[in-house]
Amino acid sequence: MSSVIRGAQFFNETSIVPAAFVEHSATNSPATWREALEASGSAPKSFELIKTLVYKPKTAKNATPVPVVVIAREGTDVISGLLGKKLNLKDLRLGSEELLTEFFALDKNSLSPLALSEQTYPKVITVVDASIFTSSSVFAVHALSSSSTFFLTGKDIHTHLKGLETHGPALHEVDFEALKADTEPSAPAGQSKAAPVKKEREGARIEGAVQIAIGIKKEVDFAAWYTNVLIKAEMLDYYNVSGCYILRPWAYSIWEVIQDWFNARIRPMGVQNSYFPMFVSSKVLEREKDHVEGFSPEVAWVTRAGSSDLEEPIAIRPTSETVMYPYYAKWIKSHRDLPLKLNQWNSVVRWEFKNPQPFIRTREFLWQEGHTAHLTKAEADIEVRDILELYRQVFEDLLAVPVIPGVKSEKEKFAGGLYTTTVEGFVPTTGRGIQGATSHCLGQNFSRPEMFNIFVEDPNDPTGQGKVYVWQNSWGLSTRVIGVMVMTHGDNQGLVLPPRVASIQVVIVPCGLTAKISDEGRKAVNDKCDELAAALNKVGVRTRADLREGYTPGFKFNDWEQKGVPLRLEVGPADLAKDQTLTVRRDNGVKSPLPLAGITASVPKLLETIQADMFKRAQDLYFSRVKPVTRWEDVVPTLDNKCVVVIPWCEEEACEDDIKERSGRAAEPQDERAPSAGAKSLCIPFDQSKWPPIEPGKTKCPACGKDAKQWTMFGRSY
Amino acid sequence: MSSVIRGAQFFNETSIVPAAFVEHSATNSPATWREALEASGSAPKSFELIKTLVYKPKTAKNATPVPVVVIAREGTDVISGLLGKKLNLKDLRLGSEELLTEFFALDKNSLSPLALSEQTYPKVITVVDASIFTSSSVFAVHALSSSSTFFLTGKDIHTHLKGLETHGPALHEVDFEALKADTEPSAPAGQSKAAPVKKEREGARIEGAVQIAIGIKKEVDFAAWYTNVLIKAEMLDYYNVSGCYILRPWAYSIWEVIQDWFNARIRPMGVQNSYFPMFVSSKVLEREKDHVEGFSPEVAWVTRAGSSDLEEPIAIRPTSETVMYPYYAKWIKSHRDLPLKLNQWNSVVRWEFKNPQPFIRTREFLWQEGHTAHLTKAEADIEVRDILELYRQVFEDLLAVPVIPGVKSEKEKFAGGLYTTTVEGFVPTTGRGIQGATSHCLGQNFSRPEMFNIFVEDPNDPTGQGKVYVWQNSWGLSTRVIGVMVMTHGDNQGLVLPPRVASIQVVIVPCGLTAKISDEGRKAVNDKCDELAAALNKVGVRTRADLREGYTPGFKFNDWEQKGVPLRLEVGPADLAKDQTLTVRRDNGVKSPLPLAGITASVPKLLETIQADMFKRAQDLYFSRVKPVTRWEDVVPTLDNKCVVVIPWCEEEACEDDIKERSGRAAEPQDERAPSAGAKSLCIPFDQSKWPPIEPGKTKCPACGKDAKQWTMFGRSY
Repeated sequence: MSSVIRGAQFFNETSIVPAAFVEHSATNSPATWREALEASGSAPKSFELIKTLVYKPKTAKNATPVPVVVIAREGTDVISGLLGKKLNLKDLRLGSEELLTEFFALDKNSLSPLALSEQTYPKVITVVDASIFTSSSVFAVHALSSSSTFFLTGKDIHTHLKGLETHGPALHEVDFEALKADTEPSAPAGQSKAAPVKKEREGARIEGAVQIAIGIKKEVDFAAWYTNVLIKAEMLDYYNVSGCYILRPWAYSIWEVIQDWFNARIRPMGVQNSYFPMFVSSKVLEREKDHVEGFSPEVAWVTRAGSSDLEEPIAIRPTSETVMYPYYAKWIKSHRDLPLKLNQWNSVVRWEFKNPQPFIRTREFLWQEGHTAHLTKAEADIEVRDILELYRQVFEDLLAVPVIPGVKSEKEKFAGGLYTTTVEGFVPTTGRGIQGATSHCLGQNFSRPEMFNIFVEDPNDPTGQGKVYVWQNSWGLSTRVIGVMVMTHGDNQGLVLPPRVASIQVVIVPCGLTAKISDEGRKAVNDKCDELAAALNKVGVRTRADLREGYTPGFKFNDWEQKGVPLRLEVGPADLAKDQTLTVRRDNGVKSPLPLAGITASVPKLLETIQADMFKRAQDLYFSRVKPVTRWEDVVPTLDNKCVVVIPWCEEEACEDDIKERSGRAAEPQDERAPSAGAKSLCIPFDQSKWPPIEPGKTKCPACGKDAKQWTMFGRSY
Repeated sequence: MSSVIRGAQFFNETSIVPAAFVEHSATNSPATWREALEASGSAPKSFELIKTLVYKPKTAKNATPVPVVVIAREGTDVISGLLGKKLNLKDLRLGSEELLTEFFALDKNSLSPLALSEQTYPKVITVVDASIFTSSSVFAVHALSSSSTFFLTGKDIHTHLKGLETHGPALHEVDFEALKADTEPSAPAGQSKAAPVKKEREGARIEGAVQIAIGIKKEVDFAAWYTNVLIKAEMLDYYNVSGCYILRPWAYSIWEVIQDWFNARIRPMGVQNSYFPMFVSSKVLEREKDHVEGFSPEVAWVTRAGSSDLEEPIAIRPTSETVMYPYYAKWIKSHRDLPLKLNQWNSVVRWEFKNPQPFIRTREFLWQEGHTAHLTKAEADIEVRDILELYRQVFEDLLAVPVIPGVKSEKEKFAGGLYTTTVEGFVPTTGRGIQGATSHCLGQNFSRPEMFNIFVEDPNDPTGQGKVYVWQNSWGLSTRVIGVMVMTHGDNQGLVLPPRVASIQVVIVPCGLTAKISDEGRKAVNDKCDELAAALNKVGVRTRADLREGYTPGFKFNDWEQKGVPLRLEVGPADLAKDQTLTVRRDNGVKSPLPLAGITASVPKLLETIQADMFKRAQDLYFSRVKPVTRWEDVVPTLDNKCVVVIPWCEEEACEDDIKERSGRAAEPQDERAPSAGAKSLCIPFDQSKWPPIEPGKTKCPACGKDAKQWTMFGRSY
């Protein structure tokens, strides 16, 4: 050990005795630091690293910046945007090496809370992760060198930092978890339970990935149940970049079914698939101001390639309007080039800072985005609805998930568009609405001359002088649909898959093969299973015979139930003797013998029955929770009853804001981190016939008392 | 106009008279600057912006940095990595605002060549885009304020900067185009003609996108011909982010055919499709050092989301080994979980600084990547070859492109793998080899304990103690295949598509409808075309009847020839009278009447003939250019003759380096910007029987005289 330890002077002034001091090889990242400590052999068995981040706020040009020093646990998510908001400082950016040198005479790898001294503390703003002070962990802090480390308790760090307060401004103790939660107005209530999940992160085999506890009930902790089902059914795995998930084959195959189905239907409409680059220059991205405003807080920026800084940062597409439309302007030269209808299956990135939720809110997600240009509004209008009808069919006919088609309010429509149509889903367990998929008419907002300038000569103008700016639509359906399906049908045994999208529709399990059964008897049963599977596969039923050795039938039942396979066939010696099989439905658990004769006809029929029953049950439940309400005092109690309301509404934006505000305020008190409970407009259903006719001038909006226009669904939502 | 103009002092000291001075609204980007100038009404009609970039090289911690100021034309691509190399400075990074304030007391939006004065010039290194001095353009430079601009000639800028040399170090005049070209060892010779294409950029409707001149011959300027064909056939369009391209439906549909074909064949092998995130944390990316070394210079980094800096930069996957394998370690718990075979269709990003070329070398490209894990090497070996055989079929059976399967030399194998198999293509027009697709055995390099630690208990070890680290493969096929297909079959009329991948296989064009023809006669012909198309579509022939009004048959012929439709049927009144149609083959131009009777059988047969003929012709040509050579002195002349050589080779890496070096040196002198002409090993063909047996100890390597091992293909390549 060297005789002079940098940073040791700090202990002379306080009562602190570090738990250990370790010298090790130089480190340049948290990973190499941890590695070096573990390799040293002298580090405590279990410890957490402390990170020290230095930010520079935006300041007037010639003013000296006051750096913000953040001391946080390794696993704490320090979101500079949120922190800046809290401290009321603009544009916090990670400080340059020069800044560190200037203020601390240290490089970033040597920085630690010990860099804060009587001399430096007054010159900076210091923020500390409050959870350090209450933690029982041992923390590693650099001894002002990247190659040596002290181990301190949370209390030691507290003593050190609090001691400095006499020399400068007050210490900012920040609960970073709460900071994040504060910005999550629309996360489901159940999500407030996410904290224990977060805790498990640290022990997971893959750093940063989350291991989910098992055996949680859907009704008790919906958010935990949901992730649990996804993991156990092998639909998805957590990934070590927050907000990103791995789509495993069991989920991806559902997406492939949807792709094939949708492609087969848009192709006859003249839509062609294509691929546009994932990158957008900032210039192009920022062309449509209203539109970009909706997306810019979530745009991910590439600023470096290899070791070269890019001259201009390049965005990853959050959606492709501005990526594609400059080329529409180029390609559309005459009305003969219309309609132009392109679609792409791709991934887009929206770097949300709200709590991510698999399939429902993720930083990268898969979708299709269709972009079309038409000569007339009438033609565009028709396509908007044709596509929406396809989306309804994806939900209802493939996924057995009921939706209500309608139009979005002005407030909720697509940024930069003319109007937005939607299919609105519903999650009964939380009583929240969820937007399913949207089909937008963009009008001429993107084609007009000051925007992308997409026009043709008007073929109907006899002078040949007239221009028509094209009418555009865009429409998208994402992997979110899979999440809604899981939430709708899953139960406490796990996933429940609708037959039409299940990659395995039928599993055949040999049963009753006790020790008494002869080898021939065993073989006869297994062969029968294989034979049945082959026969069913031949008629297009996706079937698997589960002949795995070393697993009991009970294990297999549980395994496939968890994975949601719609139908199980049990085949045992007794069944064979009777020339039958026992069918077990996943959706309702009903067991029933089925003659082997005619099974290639009866099984497909049974699968269709399951599909229809699943849809009917879900639809009945949804409709039972859509409550017409005409008095304001009934709105919040109905919402609290896990329903959405449908009210005769005035369609005014101020009223919509007011409804959100008042319903949020009136809601029952909740966990302080729970999302706001205000109700948004979900849609104005196309089918108004379910409710009494609105009498112009007589029917009033229950929220503001003005004349009502149409019945409109309002609800808490995802 | 304000009475005191910042920057005007500069004119008092020189003979320069600016062409104009304009005050305008403040600007914060090149786009807003140009906009403001154009809006001002006082700017010259045509001008270029001058950009002034300030870089900071990496310096010792406490040394004062010497900034590098780069003055360049708006359209010049300043690649900091290459510039740094040229100036012998490490890690050039764009300087911070503080740096600009410190050195010039200016913000980045006000900076201009005028910021260089007697005072500032000696403190910095100044680099100027040499093409400014020789250009006849008028250049906009900021008058030391983001809201005012001088217009100067290249000569004015020259006068200004050269005048400063007396006060400090010499000015660096850099040809940025040549700088880029210098780093392109493997671009095709024809590519040196890319400069005129680049020139056209500036006039293109979409800023930054390239318009291609038309009518270039394949034999004369291959690179220009190639891009020309792609654009005119509507396969692809240039995009305003360099190195990225738009795949239009005509090309994307080919990719879909390949996807469907390949999916149908890997599924029975037990491969499942899935989707992994596009982002990789730097920690995970850097896990395998050899592997990452191969990719790190080209990795694109996301460092910012919305307005928040990320704590750690996140990479966009250049390939997914390190993305996926941590999860393989998690999912593979027992030998029962093996083999694990996942595939994904996705896009990857490799930010190459070499000249991009559509399909062949692009910064983002589409591909499939398969990743599998096996219990034994034998099983992994078999799969490597099974997949390679599928790749061969994609090329030969779908795209009619001949390839030679073989194994890569140690030097050319996949970074971090055990061995690489490949199908090697050939572009006869340039005489260069081109790697088609590769199937790698990774061995246990990624599964070993210090890497991803992917193991199972050895099921064959009676003690139950043994571990087996899994054997892994990865294999990929990209949209590059489409580029090779275009290069192989295209001609001076445009694209030529093999029938099996053409989205329109047959086009039917009504002909002979002169003014004399009655309306009924016209209708009869058009109806016949429709009827024929319907009949052919019904039997699975993708057919379009081109009944567009207002276009002559000649226009239509040309249009569809350019797009490469394999077969044209001409239908006119005379044909109808004879109950026949005239067939015109795209591949060889042969015209031949075909009876309408039995056309639903004869057309599919004719398409298969075309497919087979295209392949045969291409294969004959390829094989005629693979020349066995046993004397060193024959190597370079053979290469110069647009051939690849196959030599009895010693398989030693030093010899391979030597061959490259010597063949490069010996090549004929070329344009100074031409890529290096050294020959690489392309592959060691599996089928060695085409050449005389190698006699151990007797057959010698013609390059080094050591004992030869196997016949090996060497050639110039892409």
